[in-house]
Amino acid sequence: MNFTDKMNEVVFKAETLIEALPYIQKFKDKIVVVKYGGSAMLDPELKMNVIKDCALLKFVGMHPVIVHGGGKEISKWVGLLGHEPKFVEGLRVTDPETMEVAEMVLSKVNKSLVTMLEQIGVKAAGISGKDGGMLTCEKKYANGQDIGFVGNVTKVKTDIINTLINNDYIPVIAPIGMDVSGNSYNINADDAACAVASALKAEKLAFLTDIEGVYKDKNDPSSLLSVLTLTEAENLIGDGYVGGGMIPKLKNCIESVKSGVSRVHIIDGRSPHCLLLEFFTDKGIGTAIIKDEAVYN
Amino acid sequence: MNFTDKMNEVVFKAETLIEALPYIQKFKDKIVVVKYGGSAMLDPELKMNVIKDCALLKFVGMHPVIVHGGGKEISKWVGLLGHEPKFVEGLRVTDPETMEVAEMVLSKVNKSLVTMLEQIGVKAAGISGKDGGMLTCEKKYANGQDIGFVGNVTKVKTDIINTLINNDYIPVIAPIGMDVSGNSYNINADDAACAVASALKAEKLAFLTDIEGVYKDKNDPSSLLSVLTLTEAENLIGDGYVGGGMIPKLKNCIESVKSGVSRVHIIDGRSPHCLLLEFFTDKGIGTAIIKDEAVYN
Amino acid sequence: MNFTDKMNEVVFKAETLIEALPYIQKFKDKIVVVKYGGSAMLDPELKMNVIKDCALLKFVGMHPVIVHGGGKEISKWVGLLGHEPKFVEGLRVTDPETMEVAEMVLSKVNKSLVTMLEQIGVKAAGISGKDGGMLTCEKKYANGQDIGFVGNVTKVKTDIINTLINNDYIPVIAPIGMDVSGNSYNINADDAACAVASALKAEKLAFLTDIEGVYKDKNDPSSLLSVLTLTEAENLIGDGYVGGGMIPKLKNCIESVKSGVSRVHIIDGRSPHCLLLEFFTDKGIGTAIIKDEAVYN
Amino acid sequence: MNFTDKMNEVVFKAETLIEALPYIQKFKDKIVVVKYGGSAMLDPELKMNVIKDCALLKFVGMHPVIVHGGGKEISKWVGLLGHEPKFVEGLRVTDPETMEVAEMVLSKVNKSLVTMLEQIGVKAAGISGKDGGMLTCEKKYANGQDIGFVGNVTKVKTDIINTLINNDYIPVIAPIGMDVSGNSYNINADDAACAVASALKAEKLAFLTDIEGVYKDKNDPSSLLSVLTLTEAENLIGDGYVGGGMIPKLKNCIESVKSGVSRVHIIDGRSPHCLLLEFFTDKGIGTAIIKDEAVYN
Amino acid sequence: MNFTDKMNEVVFKAETLIEALPYIQKFKDKIVVVKYGGSAMLDPELKMNVIKDCALLKFVGMHPVIVHGGGKEISKWVGLLGHEPKFVEGLRVTDPETMEVAEMVLSKVNKSLVTMLEQIGVKAAGISGKDGGMLTCEKKYANGQDIGFVGNVTKVKTDIINTLINNDYIPVIAPIGMDVSGNSYNINADDAACAVASALKAEKLAFLTDIEGVYKDKNDPSSLLSVLTLTEAENLIGDGYVGGGMIPKLKNCIESVKSGVSRVHIIDGRSPHCLLLEFFTDKGIGTAIIKDEAVYN
Amino acid sequence: MNFTDKMNEVVFKAETLIEALPYIQKFKDKIVVVKYGGSAMLDPELKMNVIKDCALLKFVGMHPVIVHGGGKEISKWVGLLGHEPKFVEGLRVTDPETMEVAEMVLSKVNKSLVTMLEQIGVKAAGISGKDGGMLTCEKKYANGQDIGFVGNVTKVKTDIINTLINNDYIPVIAPIGMDVSGNSYNINADDAACAVASALKAEKLAFLTDIEGVYKDKNDPSSLLSVLTLTEAENLIGDGYVGGGMIPKLKNCIESVKSGVSRVHIIDGRSPHCLLLEFFTDKGIGTAIIKDEAVYN
Repeated sequence: MNFTDKMNEVVFKAETLIEALPYIQKFKDKIVVVKYGGSAMLDPELKMNVIKDCALLKFVGMHPVIVHGGGKEISKWVGLLGHEPKFVEGLRVTDPETMEVAEMVLSKVNKSLVTMLEQIGVKAAGISGKDGGMLTCEKKYANGQDIGFVGNVTKVKTDIINTLINNDYIPVIAPIGMDVSGNSYNINADDAACAVASALKAEKLAFLTDIEGVYKDKNDPSSLLSVLTLTEAENLIGDGYVGGGMIPKLKNCIESVKSGVSRVHIIDGRSPHCLLLEFFTDKGIGTAIIKDEAVYN
Repeated sequence: MNFTDKMNEVVFKAETLIEALPYIQKFKDKIVVVKYGGSAMLDPELKMNVIKDCALLKFVGMHPVIVHGGGKEISKWVGLLGHEPKFVEGLRVTDPETMEVAEMVLSKVNKSLVTMLEQIGVKAAGISGKDGGMLTCEKKYANGQDIGFVGNVTKVKTDIINTLINNDYIPVIAPIGMDVSGNSYNINADDAACAVASALKAEKLAFLTDIEGVYKDKNDPSSLLSVLTLTEAENLIGDGYVGGGMIPKLKNCIESVKSGVSRVHIIDGRSPHCLLLEFFTDKGIGTAIIKDEAVYN
Repeated sequence: MNFTDKMNEVVFKAETLIEALPYIQKFKDKIVVVKYGGSAMLDPELKMNVIKDCALLKFVGMHPVIVHGGGKEISKWVGLLGHEPKFVEGLRVTDPETMEVAEMVLSKVNKSLVTMLEQIGVKAAGISGKDGGMLTCEKKYANGQDIGFVGNVTKVKTDIINTLINNDYIPVIAPIGMDVSGNSYNINADDAACAVASALKAEKLAFLTDIEGVYKDKNDPSSLLSVLTLTEAENLIGDGYVGGGMIPKLKNCIESVKSGVSRVHIIDGRSPHCLLLEFFTDKGIGTAIIKDEAVYN
Repeated sequence: MNFTDKMNEVVFKAETLIEALPYIQKFKDKIVVVKYGGSAMLDPELKMNVIKDCALLKFVGMHPVIVHGGGKEISKWVGLLGHEPKFVEGLRVTDPETMEVAEMVLSKVNKSLVTMLEQIGVKAAGISGKDGGMLTCEKKYANGQDIGFVGNVTKVKTDIINTLINNDYIPVIAPIGMDVSGNSYNINADDAACAVASALKAEKLAFLTDIEGVYKDKNDPSSLLSVLTLTEAENLIGDGYVGGGMIPKLKNCIESVKSGVSRVHIIDGRSPHCLLLEFFTDKGIGTAIIKDEAVYN
Repeated sequence: MNFTDKMNEVVFKAETLIEALPYIQKFKDKIVVVKYGGSAMLDPELKMNVIKDCALLKFVGMHPVIVHGGGKEISKWVGLLGHEPKFVEGLRVTDPETMEVAEMVLSKVNKSLVTMLEQIGVKAAGISGKDGGMLTCEKKYANGQDIGFVGNVTKVKTDIINTLINNDYIPVIAPIGMDVSGNSYNINADDAACAVASALKAEKLAFLTDIEGVYKDKNDPSSLLSVLTLTEAENLIGDGYVGGGMIPKLKNCIESVKSGVSRVHIIDGRSPHCLLLEFFTDKGIGTAIIKDEAVYN
Repeated sequence: MNFTDKMNEVVFKAETLIEALPYIQKFKDKIVVVKYGGSAMLDPELKMNVIKDCALLKFVGMHPVIVHGGGKEISKWVGLLGHEPKFVEGLRVTDPETMEVAEMVLSKVNKSLVTMLEQIGVKAAGISGKDGGMLTCEKKYANGQDIGFVGNVTKVKTDIINTLINNDYIPVIAPIGMDVSGNSYNINADDAACAVASALKAEKLAFLTDIEGVYKDKNDPSSLLSVLTLTEAENLIGDGYVGGGMIPKLKNCIESVKSGVSRVHIIDGRSPHCLLLEFFTDKGIGTAIIKDEAVYN
């Protein structure tokens, strides 16, 4: 690359930074909750991308909060210990032994994310819903069936999250909670992210998924929706056009927006730097769920 | 119990509270590091006693910081996974698989302590040496032998501990660290407690052990020492009177006092409420290691 | 006492401290006003008990505020100066000379309490209702009769009390006020305590008295009431069952609860450490006056 | 007075305010200790003048601290109680009864000053050297003779003074202290003012006296000195030219300057608004004692 | 002047300072906006008087904010550059060249005021309505006629003013604003002062003018009004008794009072120290416009 | 552009942002002074580039401070008013009329920069060296010749700059100062930037110039130096290799580094986004002057 080409490249880079300026201004000091899971957690390069994206969001003045899952790892360790993972309605049947393993595995995942953030120079702190009594749960039933220590979040104490944010840490949260008697519960990571974002009145909640977004028609790949109002989202569920796995996620999105989160995004974690693309381009990527009245703003 | 007896009892209780007053005054706003391990961690009643003692210390104005081990639990899970725990010079040989298990098990122990503290109404946060980049390590050799991911602490960043203390949390610390490349290391809990107490210039560092204290002569049960100056402690090691297991512990004590911790205590964790006895009686229990010149103060 | 007995005693003491934990948590950062008078002020040992109790309350995180009287001392000094104390309806007839003596004697009592608190290591500051313009008065009449410089509190400026509390002092208050023209007034200490507690929206107001509490029937020593709702207290006065001296005190209690003090206690200052017993036992001692709707909480 | 005269007067007044501007700037946020005693305390009009002067100093941004005596009032009350005041070397022989009276009388004087300040709208708080453990004393001997509870200040805790200043109160201080055992001591008000000003590193210490200042020759009324360096002051004492009553005052001045007070003034409290004249005119009035090297600044 | 005369003078001066005390107390920490213009800006002595008055207001605890004009200077420079100043309905026709000159000239005036304040030791900062985006404008029409870049204030961002006040600066404001596209606008200084005072909810807004105040009858010099309620002011305009130049000023006053300014004053800037006379005498000078209901307070 | 191309572009952009991360971390909370002048001030597009670059620096956490010149505009207006600009040794001969024009023109330039910053959503405040008494000057002579009101900076009060920075404003500074008597002085913008950066102990001082940097040999375009140590810079001047116009600039750079600025940069303002290129690429552009010992860091 000769000198002129090199200069052109750096100028182009400088212009890219300048293009980000209005987005940096818009989201300054705003809390953004990232539900981190799926492929973006398995592929090492995608993983480092997500970490770097969160670091950049932090450095330009936003307050990212990461809520992560650990599904496949949990199954792996349950297996290593000679048990067989069981699921009812997509929810893991969680006997006391599985609960112990789940908590241990989620901690391992949690600290690995903390380590990656610290390695690139960002202050991070890994906690679970037990720390500071953050997530209180009650037993969640799967179609009326007792599936063990799977929890519904009934109360969120945001104090510890705010303490960490105010002291410049990125909180990394494992979805473990406890009930009023101190029993441990495994919480679906989507549910936990939704509860945390709602309690924080976050500006954004972004679900990193393995799909491109919500389709108007699950059978038509060209029907990707970039924006969905609450009404449209509810109709979509009612009309039966969205696939089964998407329904609980969409319901979480709807509830989060109703609880005060400004925008909820379903984005494709398999796309490199999907978070930056969402934050620093006009149209964003994936599907955004917003209040009906926000359409015209 | 008739009314007079009852009144006598409550008056006696009131007087006990009053007796604690000078100690409460003396330790107000002081940091005290508790190395929590041994039997006090296995017996549920002793465990709850330690938790309640720490809660009381917090409520009367001190800042307890708990550093815990998890030795027997780690061996148990290593075994469950079909491995055999190996030790060289009392240090666990830590291959990558063992390291993963150690970190997971310590997280489980960590969160169980947090849960107990939160259950009795104290704010607590469980972290490891990875959070906030707290504990940086390098490989520790056992008599020149490579025993895997066992770490020596080379640097302590106290920022996250102070953040938690300043926001009224009891920090509960799992002795896991990372090297400059981000690899995980298992740290001996005594070493970790010593490093943390030194970095914090703690007022006290209390080791909960399974012995009554240091004996002048390991073979003479009546020779328990209640105070040891640095010189005396060093002589004791030199003279060969202290038993093998005690030597690294004594060395840690000596180093902590040299690094600025005012008093280091070796106390018997099998004795109920040993922490309160240490803090709220004139003579204390167990053995205190202090600077030579502190004898006359 | 042999070793085992001694250990049993210290363990018992440790457990007593632990028993106090929930009460310490409950009252943390709460303001408690103590009306200090009667026998607890004359007997040196009881006096030191009250001082130590207040010191302990302070050290475990509450904010005690002491309002004291000085009745018998005032009469003594009025006598020494060759005057004869006069009373109308239990209120001291206060001519200008008596007013001067009352203010001087209350100052002496005030500073002796400050000295005792400072001697045991608690920061204390003695003020009167003149300092910071705290207590504004108007003349109080005894059944329409002018009895001189006896004041009704008409306005409380809490600024100086809060300044002292926020800087870790126990405020010790002499019940002297001034009217809008700057004339000095003697205020009944019960009235002053009631006005101060109401203005501070205190958590508790405790009257140290020379009785065990309120009796349902003044002639029946077994009819001591441990709790009285406002309605019950008002009925008791209406029904004529409470004795003469108790009526103004009960009226003060009623008014304080109505003004926002959570609980008002009439406790027996002759009982050693009565304050701690009240704060650190479930049932408390003496009689508590509470809002009607607080019964079921 | 016609309109033109009236306008001339108001313009003249406005110009007077403007003339004060450089002095207001110079002393902004500076602590000035006023030793208040002598005639300025007996004459009601002079008294109100001093109070108003202090109020003005406060409102234009300085921090006046008043230390007052009470000599003649104490003698009066000692007499009313049938005792005879006794003095050795100008110091009051202070038996326990006299000590009690002295403390009570000083409190009365103290609160009367507070009342006057509050009446004109200034926040004031009256304290003695016991409050906040401010003045610690030891017994002072008069030429080796035990004269009872007369104290030398050995330690000043300025915390309570700073608390009051920082919260916009004028501290009014009665010169009563206590020894390490809690016994009360009467302190010479000049000594107390000197100790307080030194501990506060005050900008100015002004003694309101009943003389015009220091004379070079006590027998020559025309030899009034407006400035004295430390050396000159020490020579003056050595040469025997200053009268007996002036010697301890001069020694106090010398010590205060040596301890860090920038300027000490001996001014005539019988002159109306002597404080303002001192603060708001170039030459000041009375005699200033300054460091040798400050002459040329 | 002999000594006695001199002492009488200083005492008289001291008394003048004391007389100001209640006003100093009354206006402590209050914001007062001074519209500075007219003769008080042209005569060097009057100019220095205004500056000193503002300095004194600052030093005794008020927060003066100066909004200045620059009319005659602008015309002078427009002339120097070979243009002819044009006016429609008393408003300067402001073509782009005139706008540039107006901004430059106002900056020069602005910095000269800052320099004078700094020279006498007061912290001052000169800003225009562009700094911190303080004054947003839209085009103002003169009877429907486009007169160029003359602006109506549509929005005031007070942030920069408060920043300066909180850091002890006197803000000196040039009446230049910008529209939403960033074009510069000249704003009538009276309009700017009115907008700023309203946005700050100032305690006072004082217009320094070249008249003595408002007359009940413009033809009767003895009909000067010292107070006008809003109703009276509106009637006066409606009745046609006030002169043409006074009408926009009166309308500004009315609007300011309606927007929350406590008192608006029209005072005679030709009278030396008119600001001090207004602030530190009971009756004040000139005409005050107040709310109807404020008459009886 | 098809979808794939578009995605590639956004991903490339995202990666550019990520590349900036280490630089953002490195300069967080650091003060960077930008001397803004030359072509970058005349070309509207370059001008907007500089403004946007400064905005971005602000938003990613640095504290840019802009010091600007106005040379050509001053000459233009001096000409418009019928005068002829005169220079001695490259310094403008500044008679009183020229001084007035210079101040006015610099104010105009100053506010135009403020407007541009505010238009893109950054808080900015335009001040001169007179505000807050920031720049004190004395007369500067050109080879011993009096050239009027041209000033050497003798003292910098950084208080107002820090006030603005702490409240999130970009300070924009016009190089006008005053002497101790309040006379206005024109200051060379390079000198002003150097004085300000030194007083602030800035992390960087960047001179935007119309050259590419410093050449080892002024006659050899291929000899551009990217780094110069102090010693090298001083030798370069001594050896006579640098051209005349560069000498004062280099001297300023040398002095700034000696006064505590970490790095001084001479960069080419004609290159678009030169500031970002300097801050966000490893090698930077132009020439950096650093301490001798900084070479190896």
